Amino acid sequence: MEQALRITVYGPTGYTGLELLRVLAGHPRVNLVQVVSRSSSGKRLGEAVPHLSASPLANVPVVSEPEEDFDLAFLCLPHEASLDTVPRILAVGKRVVDLSGAYRMKNESAYPEYYGFVHTHPDLVSKSVYGLPEIFRDNIRGAELVSNPGCYPTAALLAMLPFLREGMLPDRVTVHGISGVSGAGRSPKQQFHFPEMEGNFFPYSVEKHRHVPEMEDVIRRITGREVKVRFTPTVVPAPRGMIVTLYLEADPVDLKEMFRETFKNEPFVRIVESPPMTRWVLGTSLCLIYPFYDPRTSMAVVISAIDNLGKGASHQAVQNMNLMFGFDEAEALTTTPIFP
Amino acid sequence: MEQALRITVYGPTGYTGLELLRVLAGHPRVNLVQVVSRSSSGKRLGEAVPHLSASPLANVPVVSEPEEDFDLAFLCLPHEASLDTVPRILAVGKRVVDLSGAYRMKNESAYPEYYGFVHTHPDLVSKSVYGLPEIFRDNIRGAELVSNPGCYPTAALLAMLPFLREGMLPDRVTVHGISGVSGAGRSPKQQFHFPEMEGNFFPYSVEKHRHVPEMEDVIRRITGREVKVRFTPTVVPAPRGMIVTLYLEADPVDLKEMFRETFKNEPFVRIVESPPMTRWVLGTSLCLIYPFYDPRTSMAVVISAIDNLGKGASHQAVQNMNLMFGFDEAEALTTTPIFP
Amino acid sequence: MEQALRITVYGPTGYTGLELLRVLAGHPRVNLVQVVSRSSSGKRLGEAVPHLSASPLANVPVVSEPEEDFDLAFLCLPHEASLDTVPRILAVGKRVVDLSGAYRMKNESAYPEYYGFVHTHPDLVSKSVYGLPEIFRDNIRGAELVSNPGCYPTAALLAMLPFLREGMLPDRVTVHGISGVSGAGRSPKQQFHFPEMEGNFFPYSVEKHRHVPEMEDVIRRITGREVKVRFTPTVVPAPRGMIVTLYLEADPVDLKEMFRETFKNEPFVRIVESPPMTRWVLGTSLCLIYPFYDPRTSMAVVISAIDNLGKGASHQAVQNMNLMFGFDEAEALTTTPIFP
Amino acid sequence: MEQALRITVYGPTGYTGLELLRVLAGHPRVNLVQVVSRSSSGKRLGEAVPHLSASPLANVPVVSEPEEDFDLAFLCLPHEASLDTVPRILAVGKRVVDLSGAYRMKNESAYPEYYGFVHTHPDLVSKSVYGLPEIFRDNIRGAELVSNPGCYPTAALLAMLPFLREGMLPDRVTVHGISGVSGAGRSPKQQFHFPEMEGNFFPYSVEKHRHVPEMEDVIRRITGREVKVRFTPTVVPAPRGMIVTLYLEADPVDLKEMFRETFKNEPFVRIVESPPMTRWVLGTSLCLIYPFYDPRTSMAVVISAIDNLGKGASHQAVQNMNLMFGFDEAEALTTTPIFP
Repeated sequence: MEQALRITVYGPTGYTGLELLRVLAGHPRVNLVQVVSRSSSGKRLGEAVPHLSASPLANVPVVSEPEEDFDLAFLCLPHEASLDTVPRILAVGKRVVDLSGAYRMKNESAYPEYYGFVHTHPDLVSKSVYGLPEIFRDNIRGAELVSNPGCYPTAALLAMLPFLREGMLPDRVTVHGISGVSGAGRSPKQQFHFPEMEGNFFPYSVEKHRHVPEMEDVIRRITGREVKVRFTPTVVPAPRGMIVTLYLEADPVDLKEMFRETFKNEPFVRIVESPPMTRWVLGTSLCLIYPFYDPRTSMAVVISAIDNLGKGASHQAVQNMNLMFGFDEAEALTTTPIFP
Repeated sequence: MEQALRITVYGPTGYTGLELLRVLAGHPRVNLVQVVSRSSSGKRLGEAVPHLSASPLANVPVVSEPEEDFDLAFLCLPHEASLDTVPRILAVGKRVVDLSGAYRMKNESAYPEYYGFVHTHPDLVSKSVYGLPEIFRDNIRGAELVSNPGCYPTAALLAMLPFLREGMLPDRVTVHGISGVSGAGRSPKQQFHFPEMEGNFFPYSVEKHRHVPEMEDVIRRITGREVKVRFTPTVVPAPRGMIVTLYLEADPVDLKEMFRETFKNEPFVRIVESPPMTRWVLGTSLCLIYPFYDPRTSMAVVISAIDNLGKGASHQAVQNMNLMFGFDEAEALTTTPIFP
Repeated sequence: MEQALRITVYGPTGYTGLELLRVLAGHPRVNLVQVVSRSSSGKRLGEAVPHLSASPLANVPVVSEPEEDFDLAFLCLPHEASLDTVPRILAVGKRVVDLSGAYRMKNESAYPEYYGFVHTHPDLVSKSVYGLPEIFRDNIRGAELVSNPGCYPTAALLAMLPFLREGMLPDRVTVHGISGVSGAGRSPKQQFHFPEMEGNFFPYSVEKHRHVPEMEDVIRRITGREVKVRFTPTVVPAPRGMIVTLYLEADPVDLKEMFRETFKNEPFVRIVESPPMTRWVLGTSLCLIYPFYDPRTSMAVVISAIDNLGKGASHQAVQNMNLMFGFDEAEALTTTPIFP
Repeated sequence: MEQALRITVYGPTGYTGLELLRVLAGHPRVNLVQVVSRSSSGKRLGEAVPHLSASPLANVPVVSEPEEDFDLAFLCLPHEASLDTVPRILAVGKRVVDLSGAYRMKNESAYPEYYGFVHTHPDLVSKSVYGLPEIFRDNIRGAELVSNPGCYPTAALLAMLPFLREGMLPDRVTVHGISGVSGAGRSPKQQFHFPEMEGNFFPYSVEKHRHVPEMEDVIRRITGREVKVRFTPTVVPAPRGMIVTLYLEADPVDLKEMFRETFKNEPFVRIVESPPMTRWVLGTSLCLIYPFYDPRTSMAVVISAIDNLGKGASHQAVQNMNLMFGFDEAEALTTTPIFP
């Protein structure tokens, strides 16, 4: 039997970290040798995270710095922490999947405005591979550093991809986003306190959101053009799930056929016959897309649904790992959602 | 003391009927003499509706046809039922506020396609007044028949109104809608069964929705132009609430100032300093609007929030009644939401 | 027209404070002259609390110490803060309704164990009136200091009251409680962060809860006996609402008749024909009770439902105010719940 | 490679059926050859159930009667349907796990009162094995017919088991139950319509519930005594999850130690250090138990938590299958919950 891949997870107690652990717990080719968390170091994972106390991961050690050797690190850290941690890991010859935004954009000049820091490792920015397999699969395979896409860019770029490929993207697209609350992270906040968020929904960051330059950066790399994205995200009272609606001016075309052709060999993207529900993707790696042309307004409308913690984060991170290490791309990644 | 206005409510057990009853229970100028419901006739309201059994309305009789004389009828009926009931009530000299869509559009040719029936009372279509006080206040005052607007048209038309007034509406506008589940009515359905709807959200009727011709009809009456509305509604796991986001191409302009000017004398429309939450309007008559101009994409974006059963239905119906009978327009209508 | 009662609310931004403000906004006999809050002082209420910005209360001043004269103060403060604030207000001749637990128990020796402080005003403990009108109505009328009951004691004591009156309470009763999350207060906490509390429920404080000595204290005052209460509270994913199930050994008796007799003149307590739903009491002053005798186990089982912020807190506080100042006991207190 | 076990699932579109399919999709030793459903026969599973359209199960045929040979049938049918289907399958030599209540009780005289039918197969009642492995593991191994326990009996009997084993159960125990809505099945009902169930909770079937004779039947078989169970179930606004609180009179004893000893070799039962949350067991086979002795009232209190569709239904059904066919008992059954 082949040696298992040795994994270290940084930041295991946030939502992307916890969902990553859940997927890794079912992956037959990997061995989680440690998790890195300053706040919980010295404990076992089952002590640090009560809902893992009965899991097979319960005895994984929580350390403040890696103590066991490893092959791959997943970084589920804040952007600023990833910025500095990535080079340290690469420097000792390990490979990295970074779930933060620190290395996603080639246009490093956007960092000060959207992330609040001047990028300190522009060399790694150019070296990092954007981990959206449907676009960059070949680059991911050999990558040392994969920068895992944001949740909204994942849903929006997949909804745009056929237009990108066909050169049909106009200079302006509107992306309306709706997301469950886990996308805002695990730290308690007044507006996400259960009694206030239950039954409540609202737009946020409507004038400026860091996923805008991320989407525009990828579009620029593929088309060489400066397409402007108008993006309006909304948060709704669900733990998970994401719906993106793309509006763009277009000539009449058979969108369903065009989309089916683009994604025909993809393991996780499906073109569906009716607008998708987020329940159909919960806990999975799926992206479901419903495209149609509206002749009354001459617009193409594309609706895509993902689990923001699934294809929008941790499952995609494992998909990237599978590609990087030559495993079956779908290994441990389910397309059977939990229901209800 | 002045004589109380005698009220009859048809269809009291649906969500708009129940919310209407709740508002009327607190209205000092009215007397609910009866409710009309075939399925529960012969009972008292408190027997027919368990949660009203301790309410002051508990003893109101439920009848299959009106038995007591009345001054005003509210119709909370299916569209087809309203179509026939309105003329019968008007024929005996009573006034009507109809909460269905049966008399909303002047363009009666749209009914077969969007409502599934040929309109049998075109004369009343031209006579009915569209009950959006912010546009048609003067007509409502003297009206015999007020057709209460749909929830989405209420939120969208208020968000459009300054552009309509200033002649700034382009030929195409995009309206993205998000609504709580009560907008889909009270009949149990598989997709709205609690275990399946909880944590779930999805677009529906994205290619064709009857609120589209309703919005276009009002725009046509004000501007004389054929503006096309692209409308995509989404349902999210909340009982109530509605957020509409309007996208339209526009020249740079101080939208907040323009909106404040348009609505400066309105009792229920407020321009807010941050994107509104639906919790801020629950159980109220409020419409909160957040407009801004996006210079990157040369688009005006307007976000409006209402309670779909409040300003979007039953509270607006009472606002219309208040106008029709010369009461204080805000009588019994609260702007203090229940929280949390 | 009579002069309005001048009101000051301390601690207006917690959940009991906010619900109290909502009730007072609709009370025709009162004038909220100021709210006291250190964190927001200098603002207007509509600035401090966004969802009140369109309310008639928007212009009420927020002060760090009272600046306007007043007749009655409601204290929606932490227990420790109430402990010291109550005597200061009484000392200047104002009356107080205290919503904290600081003056609820006559048995002041229970405070160190259950509240973590030695009571510094035992004189006021003996002077305070426990604000459960169904038991202490006459005392409330003349009281200077009314100590508003806890939510669980309200629901449990009303469910016990007929047994208390009839001398039928055994030496041990079991009280199983279920509550919405607002009972835990407004401060964000990890376990109440929306993504974690949604779909989640769990018991808490099962071995020791401060509502136990509060219930036992009232029982002792009425019966002179040391009855032991076994109390197990559970929190469920709802913003509001409370269900208490009382189990006690009993002889066969017609419980429904006994309960109807006890509460026949009460404005807010109703004996219902089927187990009550919390939706039937949301936003109201109601307590619905369903009692039955189980012959298989020789147990009386009593189920009671309240809104923990309604009859369980702020509506009961207004009921107490109405009694203290000779208003109609039900003034401004609704029995028509918001639905859905 | 060994031949996979051939499985047929009857009633695949209810909640227990769907959760069973999700578990089987990840089981390496089985092959789902067909599902039996009259309403959807002739389709593929991915057509009949939209959320399975991208799953590896999408192509499983839906038939009205079995067409492929099989080794084991899971019955996720209404009680009455199971009553007749079980003997037909056994007659052709196949083994059965029945998830209905039709064969759970040895005391067949309880069926008319609690299930509404006279039992037509008393011979099979005596032959069926109650599928609670923690009590009847050895019998399950060789069984032809395993009757999978009800959700509440699973949680309650595990909470009682140490007392049963030690002869410490008194003549009366109180079982307070709280459950998510999926326990009430998949058929839409008014009270479970999302806008009404959201934020709502209430007791039901408080005077008579069919899980009472099921619990008493098992207790009788183990102790030979007629213990009476007082059972009060409550439904709360969560899709899944179950908390049972057991109250019983007891002598002082170290309950935690007693419970740890009883369950020390069990793969899915854990004694926890604080009251368990349902989120800790969602989508798993776990039962978490928190026992304690209350010296004030001389009562033992035991809190147990399961996923009503997990250990309370479909995961337990797979656990039974694993035992029946000699697989690893924990095969395909996870103890890592989805979170959040």
